[in-house]
Amino acid sequence: MLLSQIAENFSLELVGEDKEIRALNSLQEAKGDELSFLQNRKYLNALKNTKAGAVIAQQEFVKYLPEDVSALVSDEPYVVLARISKLFAKEPMQKEGKKPVIGANCQIAQGAYIGFDSVIGDNVTIMSGAVIGDNVKIGDNTLIYPNVTIYRDCVIGSNCIIHAGTVIGSDGYGFATTKDGRHIKIYQNGNVIIEDDVEIGANCAIDRAVFGSTIIKKGTKLDNLIQIGHNCIIGENVLMAGQAGIAGSTEIGRNVVIGGQAATAGHLKIGDFAVIAARGGVTKTIEGKKVYSGFPLMEHKQWLKLQGILARLLKRS
Amino acid sequence: MLLSQIAENFSLELVGEDKEIRALNSLQEAKGDELSFLQNRKYLNALKNTKAGAVIAQQEFVKYLPEDVSALVSDEPYVVLARISKLFAKEPMQKEGKKPVIGANCQIAQGAYIGFDSVIGDNVTIMSGAVIGDNVKIGDNTLIYPNVTIYRDCVIGSNCIIHAGTVIGSDGYGFATTKDGRHIKIYQNGNVIIEDDVEIGANCAIDRAVFGSTIIKKGTKLDNLIQIGHNCIIGENVLMAGQAGIAGSTEIGRNVVIGGQAATAGHLKIGDFAVIAARGGVTKTIEGKKVYSGFPLMEHKQWLKLQGILARLLKRS
Amino acid sequence: MLLSQIAENFSLELVGEDKEIRALNSLQEAKGDELSFLQNRKYLNALKNTKAGAVIAQQEFVKYLPEDVSALVSDEPYVVLARISKLFAKEPMQKEGKKPVIGANCQIAQGAYIGFDSVIGDNVTIMSGAVIGDNVKIGDNTLIYPNVTIYRDCVIGSNCIIHAGTVIGSDGYGFATTKDGRHIKIYQNGNVIIEDDVEIGANCAIDRAVFGSTIIKKGTKLDNLIQIGHNCIIGENVLMAGQAGIAGSTEIGRNVVIGGQAATAGHLKIGDFAVIAARGGVTKTIEGKKVYSGFPLMEHKQWLKLQGILARLLKRS
Repeated sequence: MLLSQIAENFSLELVGEDKEIRALNSLQEAKGDELSFLQNRKYLNALKNTKAGAVIAQQEFVKYLPEDVSALVSDEPYVVLARISKLFAKEPMQKEGKKPVIGANCQIAQGAYIGFDSVIGDNVTIMSGAVIGDNVKIGDNTLIYPNVTIYRDCVIGSNCIIHAGTVIGSDGYGFATTKDGRHIKIYQNGNVIIEDDVEIGANCAIDRAVFGSTIIKKGTKLDNLIQIGHNCIIGENVLMAGQAGIAGSTEIGRNVVIGGQAATAGHLKIGDFAVIAARGGVTKTIEGKKVYSGFPLMEHKQWLKLQGILARLLKRS
Repeated sequence: MLLSQIAENFSLELVGEDKEIRALNSLQEAKGDELSFLQNRKYLNALKNTKAGAVIAQQEFVKYLPEDVSALVSDEPYVVLARISKLFAKEPMQKEGKKPVIGANCQIAQGAYIGFDSVIGDNVTIMSGAVIGDNVKIGDNTLIYPNVTIYRDCVIGSNCIIHAGTVIGSDGYGFATTKDGRHIKIYQNGNVIIEDDVEIGANCAIDRAVFGSTIIKKGTKLDNLIQIGHNCIIGENVLMAGQAGIAGSTEIGRNVVIGGQAATAGHLKIGDFAVIAARGGVTKTIEGKKVYSGFPLMEHKQWLKLQGILARLLKRS
Repeated sequence: MLLSQIAENFSLELVGEDKEIRALNSLQEAKGDELSFLQNRKYLNALKNTKAGAVIAQQEFVKYLPEDVSALVSDEPYVVLARISKLFAKEPMQKEGKKPVIGANCQIAQGAYIGFDSVIGDNVTIMSGAVIGDNVKIGDNTLIYPNVTIYRDCVIGSNCIIHAGTVIGSDGYGFATTKDGRHIKIYQNGNVIIEDDVEIGANCAIDRAVFGSTIIKKGTKLDNLIQIGHNCIIGENVLMAGQAGIAGSTEIGRNVVIGGQAATAGHLKIGDFAVIAARGGVTKTIEGKKVYSGFPLMEHKQWLKLQGILARLLKRS
């Protein structure tokens, strides 16, 4: 789509040359045929170094753009991004495409659904009620239990087990709010990549990325009813117990252990081999190889000490 | 059904005239052909002013009923209500009815199910494994992802998006407990109404009302794995993050923001534009336009102060 | 399978006589044709008294085995158990078997799936998208809502109601970790037994036992989005509110009440008639007939007192 068309559709001023735009992306990741946005002054450095074809930005920031990067000028770049994102969204369900390719020795139950353009490896079992969207790839020996939903464009590795009712690739939770308080959907045009040897419990929800991929790395095992937000990167061999929740864009290192009902805020990092006890609430980036508890989070031994102090206060009163 | 028949079935004394009863309802909402109940002395005022056709009540409260309101006398009105509620429950799945009416340009995937008497608007997409019960209405342009379940009699607006695995209209959690500790189901004969422009994430559970409707108003956006209890009213343009839970009969004002894993008790109100931080636990009615945290809930700045006090206690020890 | 074959497959030393092994089981429950393991020195007493046919154990513990119990010697008994468990896992979906037996007056919706060797009682309703695995038993008058998944070998009683999206019999969360940090799946070869008159809300996850059964007893009512871990025993007439989570092998007594988002650790007991308030976090075995709150858990009146102390600290500061 031409940048000039987008400008016209949304009544935006176009600064710089017109060009073909094929997708949206972040300032850091965008290429020359992609459109990005500056939502917040703290990303100004990323703006100055972006390789995007064009950027949606407020007037005052246009001057910081690299020479060959065009601008769409708006007072509300995030709201405009949201509105534009719909133009680049794929249809939830293709009306046509290639019949799926199914490998050798697969067991596809009656009542399973596989969309167009999907590729299923060898020895895969897909049970009844599982719905595999369009353009999904599933590796060898993977087992998909009943009523699992895998949204379009997602990639599942080999030797994975996905338990019943789990949803992979649902839209990340992203909205831009207008001045009068309405929330405009930011279409989530990325996907989810699940690497090999991953097991995911029942009724989990793993959201697709807004751009790029939400990734669950090799050997990680999730329990039931877990939420993984959009654009998270979950390291190798992570263990995560039931009802834990990871907010968007958080990165978890390898062999991290996360207890039941624990949760993290978004956009933070958890170091390799960290342990978060049950109910721990992570609100900041934390180092690896330590044990943490509580909300606000602290080192577990501090948390135990705090509970001792509170117990003494109680006794004394 | 005649009141006298109900009285006979459950061996209850009928005081006042016999009449036809068509449904159960609360003291405040019941009309002349509906049966209500007094569960608790604190609703005595509602009893005195009820327009119900009849009320199940203990002997001592019968004298407070308006003149033309009949009574079914019972020592255990709530248990009796539960037993009677079954008589008014609709069958979970109709054996017959009209074929559903499907609007123009709909995409109904193979493996989607639509019950009798349902009406689907124009440009609606219903993906595989989605189950739309009997007598459901869905507005134009709405998108229903795979393996969503919408129970009978629910109403979904236009331009809504319901993500995979979400359940709309499951029974509210209501039981009356007998003296020997058994829990008798109160059949949930209401429905759920989702207004226009609502998006609901994956694997949520929105319960139907016991009487009347659970309502999610226009423009509200829910993340994944959220529970909304029966008879809740969620205002316009509310945002609710993953794994939040709202207990029955709670009313949430417009543009309220509720963080991840936050929760509320039942039967309370949250004022317009209130913000509940992640993990906040609301146990009382709260004013709007303020930011709250913690459990027990307090204003967020108080909560920060409390964390400072605890940190100092820890340091000093 | 012969013990000698297992020994050869995994390069383990076999001490004692060879014998046919038909299943894995715990030291306490194993019979003469079952293989068990010693994971931890604290179970040494169980080892000394086991009736298992053979036990996987470290060299130093072999001498404590009863005379007729054979040993498979390993430095990493738990990892070896995990690897062996795969040999005894049943196929997730049988390729053949007897057509299911369906009782009188059942309503089986179009799009419901029932596996081989299953037996469905009279007057059962199974709605569209529900998937009943192989060799499942369902009692009379039970109602299975859409998109429920019941894994193979599970048993559901009479007069039960299972709401949409709920998963019964998914694998318990059990892994043995190798020295280099990879998690080896312990195949969960047990099942789930749901007794009569149980109601389970929407999008719950009830895991199957590793050996034996996860049990939910008569008359218990679960709300939505609840997790029950493997090998739990939930007593009669228990009430459990939304988003509660019970970790593996915990036993809950009769008529216990568990509030919303409350949780328990694994391997503990909750006494009859105990009440756990919303968000309570149970980390130790607790007596019945008391009310508890908080995390760490304490008696509710203590918790109220503690909140008073904290409120005064806040005020004074």
